[in-house]
Amino acid sequence: MKRALLVPVCISVFAWLPLFAQADDAPLGFFSASVGAQRDAEEVFLATPAGAKARRWLFQLTEEPHVAGTPQEKKVAEYVRDKLTELGLEAEMVGYEVFLNHPKHVSLQLVEPVEEPLALMEDAVEFDKDSTAHGMFPGFHGYGASGKARGQVVYVNYATPDDFEKLDKLGISAEGRIVLARYGKVFRGLKVREAQNAGAIGVILFSDPADDGYMKGDVYPDGPMRPPSAIQRGSVQYLSLQPGDPSTPGYPSRDGAPRLGRAEMKTVPSIPSLPIAYREAEKILRRLGGPRVPDAWQGGLPFAYHVGPGGAAVAMEVEMDEGLKPIWNVFGRIRGSEEPERLVILGNHRDAWNHGAVDPNSGTAAWLETARGLAKAVKAGWTPKRTVLLASWDAEEYGLVGSVEWGEDRAEDLGAHAVAYVNLDSAVTGDEFGAGGSPSLRDLVRQVAAAVPDPVHGGSVGEAWEKRLRGEWASEAPIDLSEPDAAFELHLPPLGSGSDYTVFLDHLGIPCVNFGFSGSYGVYHSMYDNFRWMDEHGDPKFIYHAAAARFYGLMAMRLSSADVVPMRFGSYAAALRDNLRDLERLSIRKVRGADPEAADEDVADPDAEPAPLKADFAPLYQALKSFEAAGLDLDQAVDDLIDRGEGGKAAATNAALLAVERAFLSADGLPGRPWFRHLLYAPGTTTGYAPWPFPELAEAVENKDAELFERGMGRLLAVLEAATGKLEEAAAAAR
Amino acid sequence: MKRALLVPVCISVFAWLPLFAQADDAPLGFFSASVGAQRDAEEVFLATPAGAKARRWLFQLTEEPHVAGTPQEKKVAEYVRDKLTELGLEAEMVGYEVFLNHPKHVSLQLVEPVEEPLALMEDAVEFDKDSTAHGMFPGFHGYGASGKARGQVVYVNYATPDDFEKLDKLGISAEGRIVLARYGKVFRGLKVREAQNAGAIGVILFSDPADDGYMKGDVYPDGPMRPPSAIQRGSVQYLSLQPGDPSTPGYPSRDGAPRLGRAEMKTVPSIPSLPIAYREAEKILRRLGGPRVPDAWQGGLPFAYHVGPGGAAVAMEVEMDEGLKPIWNVFGRIRGSEEPERLVILGNHRDAWNHGAVDPNSGTAAWLETARGLAKAVKAGWTPKRTVLLASWDAEEYGLVGSVEWGEDRAEDLGAHAVAYVNLDSAVTGDEFGAGGSPSLRDLVRQVAAAVPDPVHGGSVGEAWEKRLRGEWASEAPIDLSEPDAAFELHLPPLGSGSDYTVFLDHLGIPCVNFGFSGSYGVYHSMYDNFRWMDEHGDPKFIYHAAAARFYGLMAMRLSSADVVPMRFGSYAAALRDNLRDLERLSIRKVRGADPEAADEDVADPDAEPAPLKADFAPLYQALKSFEAAGLDLDQAVDDLIDRGEGGKAAATNAALLAVERAFLSADGLPGRPWFRHLLYAPGTTTGYAPWPFPELAEAVENKDAELFERGMGRLLAVLEAATGKLEEAAAAAR
Repeated sequence: MKRALLVPVCISVFAWLPLFAQADDAPLGFFSASVGAQRDAEEVFLATPAGAKARRWLFQLTEEPHVAGTPQEKKVAEYVRDKLTELGLEAEMVGYEVFLNHPKHVSLQLVEPVEEPLALMEDAVEFDKDSTAHGMFPGFHGYGASGKARGQVVYVNYATPDDFEKLDKLGISAEGRIVLARYGKVFRGLKVREAQNAGAIGVILFSDPADDGYMKGDVYPDGPMRPPSAIQRGSVQYLSLQPGDPSTPGYPSRDGAPRLGRAEMKTVPSIPSLPIAYREAEKILRRLGGPRVPDAWQGGLPFAYHVGPGGAAVAMEVEMDEGLKPIWNVFGRIRGSEEPERLVILGNHRDAWNHGAVDPNSGTAAWLETARGLAKAVKAGWTPKRTVLLASWDAEEYGLVGSVEWGEDRAEDLGAHAVAYVNLDSAVTGDEFGAGGSPSLRDLVRQVAAAVPDPVHGGSVGEAWEKRLRGEWASEAPIDLSEPDAAFELHLPPLGSGSDYTVFLDHLGIPCVNFGFSGSYGVYHSMYDNFRWMDEHGDPKFIYHAAAARFYGLMAMRLSSADVVPMRFGSYAAALRDNLRDLERLSIRKVRGADPEAADEDVADPDAEPAPLKADFAPLYQALKSFEAAGLDLDQAVDDLIDRGEGGKAAATNAALLAVERAFLSADGLPGRPWFRHLLYAPGTTTGYAPWPFPELAEAVENKDAELFERGMGRLLAVLEAATGKLEEAAAAAR
Repeated sequence: MKRALLVPVCISVFAWLPLFAQADDAPLGFFSASVGAQRDAEEVFLATPAGAKARRWLFQLTEEPHVAGTPQEKKVAEYVRDKLTELGLEAEMVGYEVFLNHPKHVSLQLVEPVEEPLALMEDAVEFDKDSTAHGMFPGFHGYGASGKARGQVVYVNYATPDDFEKLDKLGISAEGRIVLARYGKVFRGLKVREAQNAGAIGVILFSDPADDGYMKGDVYPDGPMRPPSAIQRGSVQYLSLQPGDPSTPGYPSRDGAPRLGRAEMKTVPSIPSLPIAYREAEKILRRLGGPRVPDAWQGGLPFAYHVGPGGAAVAMEVEMDEGLKPIWNVFGRIRGSEEPERLVILGNHRDAWNHGAVDPNSGTAAWLETARGLAKAVKAGWTPKRTVLLASWDAEEYGLVGSVEWGEDRAEDLGAHAVAYVNLDSAVTGDEFGAGGSPSLRDLVRQVAAAVPDPVHGGSVGEAWEKRLRGEWASEAPIDLSEPDAAFELHLPPLGSGSDYTVFLDHLGIPCVNFGFSGSYGVYHSMYDNFRWMDEHGDPKFIYHAAAARFYGLMAMRLSSADVVPMRFGSYAAALRDNLRDLERLSIRKVRGADPEAADEDVADPDAEPAPLKADFAPLYQALKSFEAAGLDLDQAVDDLIDRGEGGKAAATNAALLAVERAFLSADGLPGRPWFRHLLYAPGTTTGYAPWPFPELAEAVENKDAELFERGMGRLLAVLEAATGKLEEAAAAAR
């Protein structure tokens, strides 16, 4: 499901730090007495991942389309379990019955000005055996509703709340009409929700060539971008409201669990929707009447877009086969020797909308190479202190279902014992390493990335990554004239949603990392996301698959074997301060956008939009200072402990370190979406993918809600104070 | 020639000022005893301009294409002179012989992979009598060189210095090749210069549909944007180096003046160039091999652009008829009663690349309506104190030739006596009023714009303008967190070049204003810039032509009749401070962009790019404070003088006020382009159109030249001190 998760550039105005760690620096968290054995084990591990082997895994994993809930997907689950077993790991399949849908019948017709069926399947491409309809579902939406709709079409750009607001200003209503919108910007389920709320009777989503087609590069099969017939399938769950099985919201889909009926589910749409290719969208869009679109709504098809209505009407039919279907999470385990109950989890999903060569099985191939490398290290004598759990999730594509149900199922255990969760969704679409996640894992991520060689460009993948982020900062970060000497500091971009880290971070407060290698990739969720695409365009030598496995396994080896869990809290406040400054800028922008003359008017209009919030962020900046001081003090205490090599204090220190992130959880969760319990991070309610740091404040600024801001500020100050206390406890434990 | 001149948004961090003047406020600079008569005269004037009349003027002015140096253009000059005479004004035609070129033979052929001629003329459109080749020159470039070229094509985006730098980084050379580049961003002559400097043997410029074609709206004849066959003609003079007749650089083209030969001219290219339409460009571009373009280079044609070379070769032939040809400036005069030697100049050019319905004759139609209105006011008894000079320039399209030669010819007189120059190029392409110019005229412009009714939207054109600028500020102005309460202050966007104000402002130090109404306009410099376009799309009722005439004439009436010349200096420093802050941000951006690690390297590479300039702007901010205080004090002194109505002090005060802007001139001019003598404003050396406030500092930041920065700073401090002194002298004169 992964999509542009690593985009937000994290910036800072604090002094630029030299690369934290050279590859040959002592690994974070290890007493000097432990370093030698760890180095030996890592050497065995690092020598293992191989491109040829990853290529072989991928070839087998992507033999057939394997949508969650189908027999094909169960076959792939069994394949993965068997491979783990062959590698010598403890392996098991854990099943749930969850609510899913598969298309029984879908059709889309242009009915005015001419009758013409519109294609819901891709064209075959010569020399690409996987580009056939065999085993593929036609274009449909996961959790899309059954239904028929027939009517005039209106084009609403990306179908964001802003777009619908603009539509309104144009004096055009979506009421009783079919919304045509392009993919991009926000999670597709939120587009359907906005359209449904605006009174639309159906939704058609298309991939515009300006977004991932020819305007971004040559199209498949000549290049990696989206060809004219390619369809983006995908889920239309309301992801930012709550992920997981919509029939068991907030509790696990165990046998006998109470179930909501389709009509009671709050996180799925009730109007039908379909995805189409740009070649088909053009047939509608070129005919639309009505006003010319606002400039920003123009896409890449070669004519001036119009909003409609008028000029084109369509009829759509969607009939779903929906109900409880089996899904299968697969686990492999390397038991820890000292703290076996503590878990370091490496998760990747396995289900795909298609053959899934990129999404997600490039990740699965790398994950299997990771497993193979770790198994080799174990055979060579490595024993982790903590348990390493390799997880292969099912039904991620529908709404992170496999990971969410398992996370809800194991919430107590995970809350108490999980050390960290490292996610890998699509592992490779190109050569650019990227990672996002919890600030406490930044230094580890930098150290590990610096230890993984870049197989093409030389140096380490971390070096190239840091250079790229610094360059983006230099060209894009806002400039405050009061701080002309502000310099770059690398922070991990915060996580939003769209992959399986969500339950671990947002629901359970477990520190998370998500990573991958990215490049030009336009065939997302289409029939062309297949083995040939990867072999020709994505990673022809599969060497970035091997690099991904190296990063992944090294993360696991450090997290599971370090004497002191390798988390550092000294930069956490700086990362949050950057996020807060961005939010403050946004709130100032909104205040500026308000008409200054409006304030002068004597007569207040009760129906008028409330004025933007004049938000006071000062208390939070202040609280971050204490949090920062405590974090720096803790890092120092841990450094001293490691210098002393005092093993007796490690267990208590580790327990205290794990408690810090949990302190950011609130039992009540976020307003309107209590499942999201982390008060620092959540996906934006209107973005789905992109994160909103300080989600309650962000929502208050967005909705001009002073009361929500006040309340959110109070809750944030409370959790920050609690977390500061946890930092102090950890420092005390280490001393 | 006008193109996007009013784009830069002027922003400020100072308190938002209420609309300075209501329509019924006392006019700036008038003693209360003079207000009544002025009001009466203005009423007569304002009642005169009429859409139907403007439509009639435009119909006649655009009967035939009238390129400078042709008999058709002389006919239009005579028409304008005769109309002025008929209106009862003193009218005359003043001729010069200047170097011009007309195409004798042009051709462009695709020669590889297939032979195919490429069109250099637009298609005819049914129902548009002016869309025929009759009387039109084919696509050619004013001041383009004669020559033949044949070779491989490379695509270089907008052909800016940055684009050629990027080409270099791609490892591709333009040497010995034909550069294909799209119009936009910078003045076209600078594109040809960059290509020539890069070793190209020929240049083809095309209009990309992403810039002014279908991606911006429906295309002509259905809409106002550029259709597939439309060609942008235009001059390729090196406009930012020096405008005017290239055979007499810096001195007037009087009879017997010494002349440079074509080969000695420094401001025109030596390699051939041609403009083409996007339908023709597609035939080359779609075939280009080589790497895919950098993302920002992709245009709006429906395929992935490639850089080349390889895939397509072309042959071009350009044969020019070039040499001295006659041009004609036309003047109308209303003599001043008290200070007849002092001139208020209203200038508009008349020559066009085509029929010129927008560019420039929408301006000429409005200018004639202005003349008609002023003549009526005179007949009703109005006598200006200062002389109003209406100027109709020729050969602007080639390089502001008519205005520059006249300005050079009359430099001494103008330097001593010109009060202000108000420019109108294309008057109307839509309904959005915009004005730019000298900060001392801001308050007058606001007052006059507030007095001109918006004929469609109600309210005044000034109101809509200020609201739009405030909105742009709110959504785009950078945010400094140290100034969260910064508010909008309207400043006139500074002038760059591309129209006839250039000689007056940049060479002679005369305060200038440039204005117009803009909207969707894609047929610039093509055959479709004709009467039907305006009648259908631009201003179907010609009511914005009439509004332009009202603004224009009111500016003239206030400037020429006020007791104290209506300039105000209190906000001049704030406008400059905004510009300076933008420049400072740019310089910080450049410092950030430098690799921080590079500074650590021990071995200095003598060939390496110099590090960006760490520029210290503090002394200039400091000097602006004194300038600001003196400006505010002067405004107060003038206000007091007007309150007292003390006529005896007006003449001396006026003389002193006129001296202020001249204080910014430097006899040496700008580095490398001594004709440009204003040290605060000039067109960017690499932009042509867009202004570089503080041009010497801007160039230093751009070129990383610390010495130039030092020197420029010194010169700026000196002129600011001198100007501060002039403000003090004026205040003393008023007291």
